[in-house]
Amino acid sequence: MHPSTVSRALSPAMSHLVAPEVAKRIRAAAAALGYQVNVTAAGLRTGRSGLIGVLAPDIADPGFPPILSGVTEALNAAGYAAIVVDVGTDPSREQELVDRLIARGVDGLVLATVVLNDPVVGHCLAASIPVVLVNRSDSGRKLPAVVTDDEAGMRLAVDHLVSLSHRRLGHIAGPQDVSTGALRRAGFKAAAARAGLSPQTILIEAARAYTREDGRLAALRLLDRKNAPTAIVAANDLLALGIYDALGERGLKCPADISVVGHNDMPYVDMLAPPLTTVRIAQREMGNQAARLLLDAIAAPSARRERVVLEPTLIVRGSTGKPSA
Amino acid sequence: MHPSTVSRALSPAMSHLVAPEVAKRIRAAAAALGYQVNVTAAGLRTGRSGLIGVLAPDIADPGFPPILSGVTEALNAAGYAAIVVDVGTDPSREQELVDRLIARGVDGLVLATVVLNDPVVGHCLAASIPVVLVNRSDSGRKLPAVVTDDEAGMRLAVDHLVSLSHRRLGHIAGPQDVSTGALRRAGFKAAAARAGLSPQTILIEAARAYTREDGRLAALRLLDRKNAPTAIVAANDLLALGIYDALGERGLKCPADISVVGHNDMPYVDMLAPPLTTVRIAQREMGNQAARLLLDAIAAPSARRERVVLEPTLIVRGSTGKPSA
Repeated sequence: MHPSTVSRALSPAMSHLVAPEVAKRIRAAAAALGYQVNVTAAGLRTGRSGLIGVLAPDIADPGFPPILSGVTEALNAAGYAAIVVDVGTDPSREQELVDRLIARGVDGLVLATVVLNDPVVGHCLAASIPVVLVNRSDSGRKLPAVVTDDEAGMRLAVDHLVSLSHRRLGHIAGPQDVSTGALRRAGFKAAAARAGLSPQTILIEAARAYTREDGRLAALRLLDRKNAPTAIVAANDLLALGIYDALGERGLKCPADISVVGHNDMPYVDMLAPPLTTVRIAQREMGNQAARLLLDAIAAPSARRERVVLEPTLIVRGSTGKPSA
Repeated sequence: MHPSTVSRALSPAMSHLVAPEVAKRIRAAAAALGYQVNVTAAGLRTGRSGLIGVLAPDIADPGFPPILSGVTEALNAAGYAAIVVDVGTDPSREQELVDRLIARGVDGLVLATVVLNDPVVGHCLAASIPVVLVNRSDSGRKLPAVVTDDEAGMRLAVDHLVSLSHRRLGHIAGPQDVSTGALRRAGFKAAAARAGLSPQTILIEAARAYTREDGRLAALRLLDRKNAPTAIVAANDLLALGIYDALGERGLKCPADISVVGHNDMPYVDMLAPPLTTVRIAQREMGNQAARLLLDAIAAPSARRERVVLEPTLIVRGSTGKPSA
């Protein structure tokens, strides 16, 4: 047998290039000989490390793990391993971390961290490394991305509230330099206008970050405005938790006094008091597809860049009801 | 300058071996020349890859990310990167995944997945690869581990309930083949006996897995027993969520009819209805210390194995109160 056939059969990332029966026999023979692949040495020969860098916004945030789980599941199935780096609360480290991953010889990157006008996008394009964005996209859409339809999600939320007879709607927007923050805000405004609400009955406050505390602060500002809304749509579930906090502080009941809609359906928001009505996004699927898109790009670097947009669904629970008369 | 000095200065994992001023000058010169480290090639020279494998029980479970975040934080600070593998719900894959990580040339492993009599422990010892266990330990304590004091945690929970005048206590135990499940069960029994409760007033049901659904099923069995308890201590917070579900099904109120105590203080259990009283464990710190212990083991492979036990604290919220008369 040719050495390259043996090498391919023993590489999880390339064994599909060898007939299944042949690959099976080679693997059995290798196992009998106690053979173990040295992937580092193999990487120098093939120019591939089998490693994919994943930049996470904040691993400890319960909204992200389902996406990460989807990414690693698809990568592992293809014989690749994920190097996960937690960018944390300091986005200025993003570019340095990308460089460190490239220096490690990763075959590609999954970025869940980009902002709209992110210098890291040009940096990755200049480095000619396969990259896929997940959940968030860049303003110029220069890189392939797997995202949820942010505008459709807000339409679901607004239409639900309008059907319950709400006529004064508030929105706690996410950070406006992130695609999800900007697109959900635009989607909220468009859906409210389409439902026939006048601009004076549409109130928006932007949170500085996707945190419970920033949601609380923005909700207090919204409640202090005159003609305060009877329902509030949050740009994500963490912000919705902050709305619950603000309502508690002001002695307001949800949904009797104010209805609340979240976004993402992160784990266990069905256990809140009241259970949160929210826009469910396909997080695991998003991670899965991002990994697959990246593996395609590694296999065929010149293929055109793709953009996958997944449809959200509305999950109605106890935090929304008719406005009090 | 000697090539090895330059090499060390440019390696995040070894730059501490070079005088800070010298390292700084070398890095500046390298940056000016557009130099990028090829860590794969560097790894073949030094015999180190700078990669650490981390085996996670289920990344999407909201209890694990804070541990993972602590691990990656400490590794990144030392110039190492984590390869995170989600073992998921199929523990039989653990050994195969360990082998794949070893084949990738990882310098060490952090395992958050071991069961009490886990063949993977002997496997790792035979492979002579530095390993640290986190959160769970093996029955023979053959490998270094960073864990919480499981028995102390249950003592905090039981003493709190006894001080509220509860005299019939239930426990939803975790899987008994996992150290946390077995030790918390033993800790519960010991604490209840120490508080003077008779064996007939101590009721235990073991859940098959640490899931909300298995918690619900175990809680229903507990509620169906005669002399059902007035308070239930769960081996973790997911099981406690299942107790809430079971109480709802039976029309019982918490804490008026039954008090509930969780374990771990996973994110957002303070938002439940009622907010969950629970034993807080130092998850991020646990991850941090596991990473540091592993880096020590890599630097000095012959050092004796350590066991770090972190102290838990009780967080009293709304799910516990006096028993109804």
